[in-house]
Amino acid sequence: MIIDKFAALATANAPGQEIRQAAGNVGNLMRGGKISGRPVDFSHGDVDAFPPTPGASDHFAEALAAGGRQAYTEYRGSADIRAELAEALAAFTGAPVSADEGTIVTPGTQGALFLAVASLVNSGDRVAIVQPDYFANRKLVEFFGGHAVPVTMDYLAGSADAGLDLAQLKAAFEAGARVFLFSNPNNPTGAVYSTREIGEIARLAAAFDVTIIADQLYSRLLYANQTYAHIRAAGLPEQRVVTIMGPSKTESLSGYRLGIAFGAPAVIERMEKLQAIVSLRAAGYNQAALRTWFREPAGWMEDRIAQHQAIRDDLLAVFRDAGLATREPQAGSYLFPTLPPLAVELGDFVRLLRHQADIIVTAGTEFGPHPNSIRLNFSQDHAAAVAASRRIVEMTHRYRA
Amino acid sequence: MIIDKFAALATANAPGQEIRQAAGNVGNLMRGGKISGRPVDFSHGDVDAFPPTPGASDHFAEALAAGGRQAYTEYRGSADIRAELAEALAAFTGAPVSADEGTIVTPGTQGALFLAVASLVNSGDRVAIVQPDYFANRKLVEFFGGHAVPVTMDYLAGSADAGLDLAQLKAAFEAGARVFLFSNPNNPTGAVYSTREIGEIARLAAAFDVTIIADQLYSRLLYANQTYAHIRAAGLPEQRVVTIMGPSKTESLSGYRLGIAFGAPAVIERMEKLQAIVSLRAAGYNQAALRTWFREPAGWMEDRIAQHQAIRDDLLAVFRDAGLATREPQAGSYLFPTLPPLAVELGDFVRLLRHQADIIVTAGTEFGPHPNSIRLNFSQDHAAAVAASRRIVEMTHRYRA
Repeated sequence: MIIDKFAALATANAPGQEIRQAAGNVGNLMRGGKISGRPVDFSHGDVDAFPPTPGASDHFAEALAAGGRQAYTEYRGSADIRAELAEALAAFTGAPVSADEGTIVTPGTQGALFLAVASLVNSGDRVAIVQPDYFANRKLVEFFGGHAVPVTMDYLAGSADAGLDLAQLKAAFEAGARVFLFSNPNNPTGAVYSTREIGEIARLAAAFDVTIIADQLYSRLLYANQTYAHIRAAGLPEQRVVTIMGPSKTESLSGYRLGIAFGAPAVIERMEKLQAIVSLRAAGYNQAALRTWFREPAGWMEDRIAQHQAIRDDLLAVFRDAGLATREPQAGSYLFPTLPPLAVELGDFVRLLRHQADIIVTAGTEFGPHPNSIRLNFSQDHAAAVAASRRIVEMTHRYRA
Repeated sequence: MIIDKFAALATANAPGQEIRQAAGNVGNLMRGGKISGRPVDFSHGDVDAFPPTPGASDHFAEALAAGGRQAYTEYRGSADIRAELAEALAAFTGAPVSADEGTIVTPGTQGALFLAVASLVNSGDRVAIVQPDYFANRKLVEFFGGHAVPVTMDYLAGSADAGLDLAQLKAAFEAGARVFLFSNPNNPTGAVYSTREIGEIARLAAAFDVTIIADQLYSRLLYANQTYAHIRAAGLPEQRVVTIMGPSKTESLSGYRLGIAFGAPAVIERMEKLQAIVSLRAAGYNQAALRTWFREPAGWMEDRIAQHQAIRDDLLAVFRDAGLATREPQAGSYLFPTLPPLAVELGDFVRLLRHQADIIVTAGTEFGPHPNSIRLNFSQDHAAAVAASRRIVEMTHRYRA
């Protein structure tokens, strides 16, 4: 039934939709008064604290001046821009990218994820999905009538690995899953899969003819002394890996809605066919902002990483000092602290944070069965983020079971 | 099978994708040499000949300066902008629009169409579709596993009506179709449904509990002495009509990818849930360009209509003088001339037009079973469009059966 299909797509607790939530009866649950402080919306990065890559708006203006040529690109995006990107992405990921056959520009990485899942998942198909992982992954699979087969990740184990349960992954493939969709760095924990894990995943995928959709949105924001293994360079056949990236996060170009999928030409071709009826193309003028990508001014990315690393370290200290088990993010700007047992439900605690402490976070339940965690995107003003994290700790004291 | 699903989505002949077509063996079919003239791409409007609404780029720049507030709107789009639009759209269509519950901003009207069909059509459902009509309508229905029930339109009959076969529409509803999707003005013919026809469609829809998706993308470009009836103002319950519009055509804002769906709150709510996993939202900064919509400078729209009407009249004369039966477009910038019997197939004729006469048109077969027609978007440089139309006529002489 179409009603069930849309009930499963509930977005009331999705990041960014808090404005549509009623406060409900949260006032009845309140313990103590307001905890004042500068409001922080941890549901997404703050592009005012970390502004867009320099030059993006100039490229937009140039594209506008170029007129029709840039307004009406191929559905898969401007050929010129894809040629530039193919080169940069091949260098970044360590494996060749075909500009013509193996790239598609999409409205954000969300657009790429949607098209990739739609191109690979049919009614009744099983898809291996990590727990925890990006909230839309499971919804996408279910929207197309697929079944998500959960594979757990023990992200708090403290090893050099992300903690994926490889035995479970193998079991999922044995049970018939032919698609594995995962984010790396992991959203919401910031865990990066080790080279060993990526190798094992590739080995299993090859053995079972599995196609991989790798969401690498945050892979450029890699912290000091971390290594990153691109699964598309792990020896799988070209047609078995679609990689998704975009400049929305680290580069703060989210307001332009740009993403790219690259790899498997047959999948990219399907994605373009579908994009023709989903949204035609990423906004033509906006595509030009991609000309800044991987061409940031010297030192710009290093600075951005260093600033995020400093915030990461401070927030991690706040939560760990308070006894909240938290994985150290190896890349990206998500933090996923574990809360102590609370006297209120997670959904109410999230609402209380908003109404009592002016803090927006995303409930762990959006990412799988994680009712004791919250996700923070710490790409925020440094001081405000630290102060807000202290308010979160204070709130956990007030609502401790 | 997912392979069949994507085979049905063929885009090789879709407007704008000509660049990906191989010339094939079209040289073997050529009769005579090249017919020289300024190239014209009739597959879409020329935003260089008819530039975007003044002020759109200023609003984009302001939104960019506003930062995060504009980059991260609700999934259904900025509440401020939707409030302005709701007022303008209610005035334009003659029926109330709820800004909060009854509007969603999408990546182009294509985005709105996709979300609307996805929200109303499930596997096995029947959907009434006009022949001819916008090429994506049938593909959208089939992508979601629905069955398109064709309803023919005798657009060459020369009456005051668009020519919809109302008996066929009723039969489609009797056969179980509970959704009717149609463009008005009709794409590709430019026919506008008469007030009588809209009344009859509404009466039938009410009798059979049918939900209407009305694609009114071109409804503002209405020529002299024409009247336009909005089906959302035809007395149906609010939840039975979703109207889709956008500033991509008449207003030439296509490069911004903006559309809006308005009406039925329950459908809009589903559309937002789905947009959350399809593309999150229309590009945040771009949404601000909608602030120019329905607020064009005095006389701007009248001028634009007058210029298009002049082109329409000249092209119509060229085709009719050559004996090519062509409906006079009452609105919009599409023209759908009927070709004489040709010695080559339509697909080859379209390729020959491109390679021999530097003209891109869209084959009639994209719009239903219309192998003897081609579609032109005549929002082009006036003189170039007239000259190219003469070349088309010359080409029909060369390839006449």
